[in-house]
Amino acid sequence: MSWLDIFRSREKPKPATAELAKDRLQIILAHERVGRGREDFLPKLQQELIAVVARYVAVDPDKVSVNLERGSGMSTLAIGIELPSPGNAGRNAA
Amino acid sequence: MSWLDIFRSREKPKPATAELAKDRLQIILAHERVGRGREDFLPKLQQELIAVVARYVAVDPDKVSVNLERGSGMSTLAIGIELPSPGNAGRNAA
Repeated sequence: MSWLDIFRSREKPKPATAELAKDRLQIILAHERVGRGREDFLPKLQQELIAVVARYVAVDPDKVSVNLERGSGMSTLAIGIELPSPGNAGRNAA
Repeated sequence: MSWLDIFRSREKPKPATAELAKDRLQIILAHERVGRGREDFLPKLQQELIAVVARYVAVDPDKVSVNLERGSGMSTLAIGIELPSPGNAGRNAA
């Protein structure tokens, strides 16, 4: 799956100083619709997906960004979640 | 978010004949870990995310593909779901 390379190429972004020790989670949903017979359900999924993630990690609602784009044949929902640092461990940002 | 262009460029894939009228949903989670202090929780999310989606659309377990890749600083979980056609509506694959 070559599109995963996109994420890999973003593996070492240059974070702002304040974000240096932040983990990040990105969730992307892409719904390809062949016809027009199906409702676009991505917007409804949004809060539920975040709620599922929040069961595993602390999610600050202020640190969640959502981007929904609807096209004729495809809708994409991108959720970005900035995760708080896990305690004081793992601050080796190098 | 330029990486969304990847999905857009895939908007009109050349499907196999048997898949001509299938909608598809792709879910990609990318977890960037700055340090090593956080557990990799993506594998645990997998079934729950599929269960959430299944509340909105019919999901055939045989039509779900999962690809998990773990790297030192990033894990990616890709879930591909082929959705059955919504009744007889919307079979205009053009």
